[in-house]
Amino acid sequence: MREETAGKESDSGDEFGRIARHFRPLAAGVPGALGLTDDAAVLAPTPGWDLVVTTDAMVAGVHFLPADPPEDVAAKLLRVNLSDLAAMGAEPRWYTLTTALSAAEDETWLAAFARGLAEDQAQFGIGLAGGDSVSIRGPVTLSITAIGEVPAGQALTRRAPRHDDLLFVTGTPGDAALGLMLVLGTQTLELSEADRAYLIERLRRPTPRLTLAPHLRGVASAAADISDGLVSDLGHITRVTGCAAVIEAGRLLLSPVARRVIEARPDLWPELLTGGDDYELVLAAPAAQAETLKALAECGGCAITEIGRLCPVAPGDRPGAVTVIGLDGQTLTLTRRGWNHFPPSP
Amino acid sequence: MREETAGKESDSGDEFGRIARHFRPLAAGVPGALGLTDDAAVLAPTPGWDLVVTTDAMVAGVHFLPADPPEDVAAKLLRVNLSDLAAMGAEPRWYTLTTALSAAEDETWLAAFARGLAEDQAQFGIGLAGGDSVSIRGPVTLSITAIGEVPAGQALTRRAPRHDDLLFVTGTPGDAALGLMLVLGTQTLELSEADRAYLIERLRRPTPRLTLAPHLRGVASAAADISDGLVSDLGHITRVTGCAAVIEAGRLLLSPVARRVIEARPDLWPELLTGGDDYELVLAAPAAQAETLKALAECGGCAITEIGRLCPVAPGDRPGAVTVIGLDGQTLTLTRRGWNHFPPSP
Repeated sequence: MREETAGKESDSGDEFGRIARHFRPLAAGVPGALGLTDDAAVLAPTPGWDLVVTTDAMVAGVHFLPADPPEDVAAKLLRVNLSDLAAMGAEPRWYTLTTALSAAEDETWLAAFARGLAEDQAQFGIGLAGGDSVSIRGPVTLSITAIGEVPAGQALTRRAPRHDDLLFVTGTPGDAALGLMLVLGTQTLELSEADRAYLIERLRRPTPRLTLAPHLRGVASAAADISDGLVSDLGHITRVTGCAAVIEAGRLLLSPVARRVIEARPDLWPELLTGGDDYELVLAAPAAQAETLKALAECGGCAITEIGRLCPVAPGDRPGAVTVIGLDGQTLTLTRRGWNHFPPSP
Repeated sequence: MREETAGKESDSGDEFGRIARHFRPLAAGVPGALGLTDDAAVLAPTPGWDLVVTTDAMVAGVHFLPADPPEDVAAKLLRVNLSDLAAMGAEPRWYTLTTALSAAEDETWLAAFARGLAEDQAQFGIGLAGGDSVSIRGPVTLSITAIGEVPAGQALTRRAPRHDDLLFVTGTPGDAALGLMLVLGTQTLELSEADRAYLIERLRRPTPRLTLAPHLRGVASAAADISDGLVSDLGHITRVTGCAAVIEAGRLLLSPVARRVIEARPDLWPELLTGGDDYELVLAAPAAQAETLKALAECGGCAITEIGRLCPVAPGDRPGAVTVIGLDGQTLTLTRRGWNHFPPSP
C-alpha cells in the first residue's frame, strides 16, 4: 500500500501515519497483506478452487453524491464488488482498494470511510490485502478489486442456460430505483420518513447475495447481478446465450414500500424494471430445478421469485431481446432498458 | 467488464462497442476472462503456488502529464504494477483495469492506450482478466490490479534480511529522475536528442525486472522496487526490519548518459539518489550469496551492483536510518528522502 501526494514526500510521517491509522487495521486479519508495508500481498489460494476476480469503480457525482455519508460510500463500493462475486457463486476472500482523494476528504471523511469498510469486512468475511492511495484535483474516485473463490469448475456464468430455462429474481428489485428518485428529487413521492429511509438504505447499502451464492452452484444455470437494471442485466444473459426472454411485471415481488408507491403511481413501473443499483440476482434454471431453487430462499436469506422464462429468438426479433408483459397482459414498451446513476450536472 | 457513462444507457450499442473494440482483444488469450462479458473472471491458480497481488493507480497531472502519449501511459501503468510483482519474485499472470476517462479521451486516445497495453501484455506475459470503465469530470484516473504467482512460501518480502546483509541494486538508477527534469523543464541539461530520448524513455517505460525475479528466490533476503527513490525505498526495508543501512554513492552504476550529466552537474547527485520512477530493484542478500547474486546479472538481463550494507541502528540514531556516503567519503545530507512525481500546479 503506497500513498502518494503530489509535491509531498511520499514517506513523510504524516502520510504513512494516515495510511496506518485508517487502512492498516483493515488488513490486520490478513496475514498475506504483510501489514500493507510491502510491494504486494502474498495470498494462499484454496487448493482445488478457482479464483473469481472482479473490479468496480465509483466516481463522486456519477455513482454517489459527494455529500453522501462516507460509511455508505465505503459500503456501496465494497458491496457492488461482493455482488459480482455472489453472481458467480463465489465466496469472498480478499480485496484491494484504490482511493483518489482530493483535499476535501479530510481526516473525518477518511475515518468514516474506513469505518464503513471495517463494518462490511466483518459482516461479509473479506479482508483488505493491499491498495494504493493517490491525490486527485477532481472528484473522489474509488475502486476495489475483489477476489473470491469457488470450487473448480463450479462458477456460475451467464453462458450455460438452455433456451427454455425458467427465470428467477432474488429479493425485491425496484427499491433502489425509488431510493434514487428520492435522493435526486426527480419525483415527489408521498412517503413516511421510515419508508424514505428504507428506500435510500436499499440504494446506498445493497445486500450482496453471498449467503445464497454457494447454494446456487449446480442448481442455477446462469446468474447475473442487477446493477444496471433487471431488463438490462437479463439482456446480458440473453445476448451472450443467443436467446430471448419473456418476463411478467406482475410476478415481480415488490417490497411493501415499493408496492405502496406503485399503487399510487403505476406510471413508475418502467422505472422499477429498468432502474439499477438493486444488486439482486437474476437467475436462470431448468424447470426441474425450480422447486429446489425456490426452497433456497430460506437458507439464502432472501425471496426467490419466478418471473418468466428464456425462449428462442422469435423470427425477425433481435437475439437477446427481453420482452416484458405488463399487468394488463400487454407488452410494456420501455424507452430505456437500463440507466446509470446520476445524470450529468448541467 | 462494465462501462458506465452518466446519463447514458449502459448497454447501448455504442458503449459496448467501445469496450469490445478496445479492451476485449486484450482478454482474448485469457479463457477465464469470459470475453469480459460476465460479472467476474474465473481463473485457475497454479497448484502449490501463492498469489501475489498488487494495485497501483495513476492520475493525470500527478503521475503523468495529460499530453503524454497514451501508449506510454498504458505501458507505465502496467509496468509499475509488474515491477511490484518482480520485487516479490513473482511471475505475472492476470490483471484487471479500471479507467476513469473524461470526454477529452476520444477514440484515438483509447485506441493508442489499448495498443500500449497489448504490446506490453505480449512482452511481459500477462493478460487482461476484467475491469471497469467509468466517466469522470476531472483528470484521467487509471488503476491496475496485477496478480502474479510465486511458488508457495518463496515470495521475497522486505522482512527477512539480517542486519549485516549486503545491499545491491539492479540496472542504472537515476535515469528516470533526469528524465523527469527534462519533461518538467526544471533543469536545463546539455544533452543530445538521443540522450534526451533515452532518459525520457526510462521515465515513461521503466523495465520491470521480471526476467530476474524468479532467480532471486532463495538468493536475496529482501527486495523492494525503487518507485519512490533509492533512499526512500531502501528505508522501507530498514524500517520494517528495524535496522539501518549505509550505501556509497560512488558504487552506484550509472548509465553512460547519467554519467555524462553528473560529471557536468555534480550538484544533481542527490536527485539521482532520491528520484523515483526508476523501478529498479534494491536487494539485500547475505555476504555468502553475493557472488551468486552478481552472477544473476546475465540471466536477469540487468546489472546487479553492490552498493552498501545493512547494519544495526547506531546509538541515538532512528531505526530505519539510511546513510549515504558521497564521493568525497563524507555523509551526504539529503533534504528529502524521496519525492513523488509532479508538483501541484500553481
